[in-house]
Amino acid sequence: MSEQSHMIEALETPCLLLEEKRLERNILRLRDKADRLGVALRPHLKTGKSVEVARRVLSGTSPKATVSTLREAELFADAGVRDILYAVGIVPQKLDRVLAIRQRGCDLSILLDSVQQAEAVAAKCAATGETIPVLVEIDSDGHRSGLPTTSPELLEIAALLVNSGAELRGVLTHAGESYGVSGAEAHAAFAERERSATVTAAAALRRAGYSCPVVSVGSTPTAHAARDLTGVTELRAGVYTFFDLVMAGIGVCGTDDIALSVLTTVIGRQRDKGWILVDAGWMALSRDRGTAAQAIDQGYGLVCDAGGQLIPDLVMTAANQEHGIIALRSGPTAPLPELPVGTRLRILPNHACATAAQHNGYHVLSPDPVLNGQFWSRISGW
Amino acid sequence: MSEQSHMIEALETPCLLLEEKRLERNILRLRDKADRLGVALRPHLKTGKSVEVARRVLSGTSPKATVSTLREAELFADAGVRDILYAVGIVPQKLDRVLAIRQRGCDLSILLDSVQQAEAVAAKCAATGETIPVLVEIDSDGHRSGLPTTSPELLEIAALLVNSGAELRGVLTHAGESYGVSGAEAHAAFAERERSATVTAAAALRRAGYSCPVVSVGSTPTAHAARDLTGVTELRAGVYTFFDLVMAGIGVCGTDDIALSVLTTVIGRQRDKGWILVDAGWMALSRDRGTAAQAIDQGYGLVCDAGGQLIPDLVMTAANQEHGIIALRSGPTAPLPELPVGTRLRILPNHACATAAQHNGYHVLSPDPVLNGQFWSRISGW
Repeated sequence: MSEQSHMIEALETPCLLLEEKRLERNILRLRDKADRLGVALRPHLKTGKSVEVARRVLSGTSPKATVSTLREAELFADAGVRDILYAVGIVPQKLDRVLAIRQRGCDLSILLDSVQQAEAVAAKCAATGETIPVLVEIDSDGHRSGLPTTSPELLEIAALLVNSGAELRGVLTHAGESYGVSGAEAHAAFAERERSATVTAAAALRRAGYSCPVVSVGSTPTAHAARDLTGVTELRAGVYTFFDLVMAGIGVCGTDDIALSVLTTVIGRQRDKGWILVDAGWMALSRDRGTAAQAIDQGYGLVCDAGGQLIPDLVMTAANQEHGIIALRSGPTAPLPELPVGTRLRILPNHACATAAQHNGYHVLSPDPVLNGQFWSRISGW
Repeated sequence: MSEQSHMIEALETPCLLLEEKRLERNILRLRDKADRLGVALRPHLKTGKSVEVARRVLSGTSPKATVSTLREAELFADAGVRDILYAVGIVPQKLDRVLAIRQRGCDLSILLDSVQQAEAVAAKCAATGETIPVLVEIDSDGHRSGLPTTSPELLEIAALLVNSGAELRGVLTHAGESYGVSGAEAHAAFAERERSATVTAAAALRRAGYSCPVVSVGSTPTAHAARDLTGVTELRAGVYTFFDLVMAGIGVCGTDDIALSVLTTVIGRQRDKGWILVDAGWMALSRDRGTAAQAIDQGYGLVCDAGGQLIPDLVMTAANQEHGIIALRSGPTAPLPELPVGTRLRILPNHACATAAQHNGYHVLSPDPVLNGQFWSRISGW
């Protein structure tokens, strides 16, 4: 490989950059935290959607993983991951595909929160003689799905599953509302809500005579803030690998922990308006405006030079499909940096999961800003 | 093909549906309008990003096309399109790729709005002996890029191009601000701004002795509302092919013109909150909230049954990565329709370009709601 091909300058823009050192540091940070809390880590692979990222995120001889689509489950099962949780409520139409993945030797478990779903799983297990392991979702914060901790449906579901030959593996929750609060104290409170809700539900199952080996909790904010996870067996999180401005905005990381950026090129300037135009629009950044509701709205992202250093006060304020508009936060009267046409810039994203999903892979920086020549491909679709 | 495979029920969800009859009707509508206005149509292929869609959108023996990425230019050049405009400001780093596409027999033209860009193009043409056709972008509404109509840079750019062996092909504008106003009267005013700005710039070039064969204008709202395009030679538009809720919200189409929808499956319900949960989140819909600033905020989209009929008052109010939350606009006290787990629904998107970009192709309905067995693949990337 030539010297030139190690340089960011040789890449076509827009494209996605991933800093290996920050990725590794972020991975170790949560791995250490889980070790200290005495729980297993079940990383969510929906952020990376990449076998190469997964190899770094997963650890131990029998790693556990979480996925958001059956397409991810198929990819990672084929790559040798043998314990995968599909963490979106199951529907009857997907059960044959679940069985097919299990028959490939992967212990794929599924999630549900209703008698109706449990009936479908029970019917499938009874009809096929196969065992499907099931987690029951518990609602710990009113965020989206899950049964109330004290729901009588919990025991009804347990009975349906166990009587049909399905496996009741445990209970799960995700405090998605933790993204809406800032600071370790607030996140620790949500972590305790996750713990308390699942431990209570597990106790109800056990009192009724059911085993409940898995008690699964997590989100990136709660995982990092949790102080005590007594009764919990595993911790899930996803975006902690890359981090992003949303996580920085609620105090879970600093901007210098963000491993993902979009490389872009300056295509023009509107001097009167104080605008710099670049060739990364929402197609490259996504339409995610997750910082809009935070204390500091970061627009479509913060702007770094090609070396990854933040350029003070510069924000991507607007995005069209293939155009980004960069301006000074302090307004058009401040002096705009001279960034001629052709200048390379890097944009730190609001939401790593959404931005990465706009690309087919990662150009790996190691050490930043040198490309190590590797391109880690991503999957998309369902 | 079995009967079953013609049915929407057989598809994995979430996925993208495209109704062929609405697509054809939308295509004919703008083609007729362009004919009546006496201008050529140069459809923007960035919405469909599909050779199959392009075959239907393009017309005549030497069709003209607009693209938003060089990757699209390569795809459509390979598919036989011989006249393509890359309508994002050029950077020096992309000129070799432009030349490579031109050498494949495609008359690819480029866009710029600064002396600095013109110098780079002039240098490339002088160095290679190749001719690159150039349109100069004019700002007609303060939306993003483009020179002011009366800018002295216009003649400076023209001189640079012509003296280097580049080709000054014409002027172009796009009134993106027309998306922010509602009704034919307001859109017609923006169409006139597009016409007036480009015709004025073309006249300045011609007065100075330059030829300016192409005067290119357009956006979906202005294209449909334009009343007189005297002096204009071609009309560009993209989202008119599929339409979406943003276009319906500003009166350019009705919801029954929207050809694109996302098929999803009900995965659960939170009865107390009046929520129905589905397996299409922002990964399937995109994060585009383009109707948020309109008179009626459509959330993440309107909800139809599997047959494509709108279910009154139902809106996707929130989206996580793979979860959508559907609720009644009138609030949780109204009776929620019984939509059991496994029910198929279709979501009409805010922004067709953004939603389609989340998928690798279209399942074609013809006639709705019957699948005709075709899957039209899309490209992504740059």
